[in-house]
Amino acid sequence: MKEWIDAYEERDWQTTTDGTVRYALLGLGWWTIDLALPAIRDSDLGEVTTFVSSSTEKAERLADENGVDHGISYDEFHEGEAAGAYDAIYIGTPNAFHLEYAETAADLDKAILCEKPMESTVERAREMVEVCDDADVPLMIAYRMQTDPAVRRAKELIEDGFIGEPVSVYGNNSQPLLEMNPNTDQWRLNPDLSGYGTSVMDLGIYSINTTRFLLDREPQAVQAQMSAHAEAFEDVPDERSGALLALEDGIKMVTTDSQNAHDDTQLKITGTEGQIQLNPAFHGKAKLHLSRNGTTITVEHEEFDAEDEMREEFDYFADRVLTDGEIFPDGHHGLQDMRIIRAIHEAAESDDIVEL
Amino acid sequence: MKEWIDAYEERDWQTTTDGTVRYALLGLGWWTIDLALPAIRDSDLGEVTTFVSSSTEKAERLADENGVDHGISYDEFHEGEAAGAYDAIYIGTPNAFHLEYAETAADLDKAILCEKPMESTVERAREMVEVCDDADVPLMIAYRMQTDPAVRRAKELIEDGFIGEPVSVYGNNSQPLLEMNPNTDQWRLNPDLSGYGTSVMDLGIYSINTTRFLLDREPQAVQAQMSAHAEAFEDVPDERSGALLALEDGIKMVTTDSQNAHDDTQLKITGTEGQIQLNPAFHGKAKLHLSRNGTTITVEHEEFDAEDEMREEFDYFADRVLTDGEIFPDGHHGLQDMRIIRAIHEAAESDDIVEL
Repeated sequence: MKEWIDAYEERDWQTTTDGTVRYALLGLGWWTIDLALPAIRDSDLGEVTTFVSSSTEKAERLADENGVDHGISYDEFHEGEAAGAYDAIYIGTPNAFHLEYAETAADLDKAILCEKPMESTVERAREMVEVCDDADVPLMIAYRMQTDPAVRRAKELIEDGFIGEPVSVYGNNSQPLLEMNPNTDQWRLNPDLSGYGTSVMDLGIYSINTTRFLLDREPQAVQAQMSAHAEAFEDVPDERSGALLALEDGIKMVTTDSQNAHDDTQLKITGTEGQIQLNPAFHGKAKLHLSRNGTTITVEHEEFDAEDEMREEFDYFADRVLTDGEIFPDGHHGLQDMRIIRAIHEAAESDDIVEL
Repeated sequence: MKEWIDAYEERDWQTTTDGTVRYALLGLGWWTIDLALPAIRDSDLGEVTTFVSSSTEKAERLADENGVDHGISYDEFHEGEAAGAYDAIYIGTPNAFHLEYAETAADLDKAILCEKPMESTVERAREMVEVCDDADVPLMIAYRMQTDPAVRRAKELIEDGFIGEPVSVYGNNSQPLLEMNPNTDQWRLNPDLSGYGTSVMDLGIYSINTTRFLLDREPQAVQAQMSAHAEAFEDVPDERSGALLALEDGIKMVTTDSQNAHDDTQLKITGTEGQIQLNPAFHGKAKLHLSRNGTTITVEHEEFDAEDEMREEFDYFADRVLTDGEIFPDGHHGLQDMRIIRAIHEAAESDDIVEL
């Protein structure tokens, strides 16, 4: 037990402590400025040299305010401005713009860390994979749960037989989006920018991807129900969604997600011999609950918030870029989530089961 | 808050404290002897006068051991033996025998408290409803969650707008059946005795019925996946099951159930403004979690176990029998659960959505 606790935060993925990856950050919203920037500054292997935004003026102003060397516009980025100042880009823009920045980065031979979901459609995500494969540039999708210690320890325990055979999975990710950002014109409610919808693309992806990572099993077929009720959600199909996913080995997975509901995240994996829960599960709050043989252990780790999650993610990415190592959540891995999300939307539209 | 706690166990359903219902108990397994019998003895309005079992000898022996006046066989029960000694019967036998005992009780003009699920098939359940309606005898299905204070207080809060509009529901009920009873020939694994299957009939019914009671909304369509893996489950389709239920008003409900998994029960209702959870939910362990506006209250009530749940249920039944009052979980209410469970099985068999 002592050894387990002391090794809780261990970076079992780390292969180097040498070198620095210099980043250009694209999409200067609160997420990038308030979380990604401090996370990289707190990381061992990263530094931010360049800000990219809608206008040179805005980029320069924010670069100045935040002590970053270069501030350039998206147009300047596409023209290769300041390209000597960074080794990698972090894409934190609306989904439907990810591809064009990845294309330019591939042209410029830069590594890419792209927020999830990786694009707005399967086709555009596939194009991103091809572009990066062709240019032979590293592409990682920013699934920060995969470097969260709670998730990595859960995965080790599952692989060690802690829960026996996995039987069922439940994932929920709900939040009151309009309380967090009252603007009803925001991109998450605009399918041209977000893609298939809002709740599964933006929230459900956490349950889906974390389960794929934890169990190393893929969904084989999905069924789903979606609906929109409030006026702000009239352009998207999934203010609310529920899905049933048939995973390999007969594992039954159920999910609910909503952008217009009480804040709650939970991921629960029940097996023949035990159960592992993340509750809360996502957004830098992961708490681990381990049950087996009549005993439940709850693991709380101080100060592991969303910024810490981001720091681990950036150092994992930098570790792989610096060593030319294999990236687990690469473009192919992210593309599979896009296929699953599209299938969930198709299933909800048709009331049919959709095979994957 | 003080008033709320002091009224937590209040029997808001009680209409009389006078009178006694004398019971014959059918099906003398551990549930009846160890839980139903002491629950009735602890109740205000009930007393046990008669035991009914497979043979006169066994019934007499158990009656003797437990200080009960009469011990008769099922044959003797059907012949009206000792019928003057009881006013009501409690049916705790395997599902597929419920109807025949209800028929005799109706003939004998006795009130009926019948364990859930009410029978093995929709057709037999409907027959029970008709028989009892025709004979004008009270029929209650033993949904003891409906008189559990945690559930009743949750229902009041939901009706008072605590969670806003209901958005999603998650229910899980799993247990390691063969650890609880290692006999692989037990009736719960035999479709001739249990009905459509084992996990949804025996466990899933808790999530389904408690949600119907709490939200006062019915499922309109269901989708489901089931599978059997271990040898002991070869005759039933649902060692494991997952279901997606579309409830009225766009509420998405997801459930998982298994008779061969880690012991776990949870029922979580998420709304636009709050969340109410029973976690654990069932089997006399209900703990209430109330979340709203960033605050969560956890309500633990001492000594409210399965026997207490049964006591409340028996006194509710007796109250209605003695006053000729309306029974909420009556045969028609129980029949609807049978329809829902059949639809879940049909959906799993066909991979299609099944409308209700």
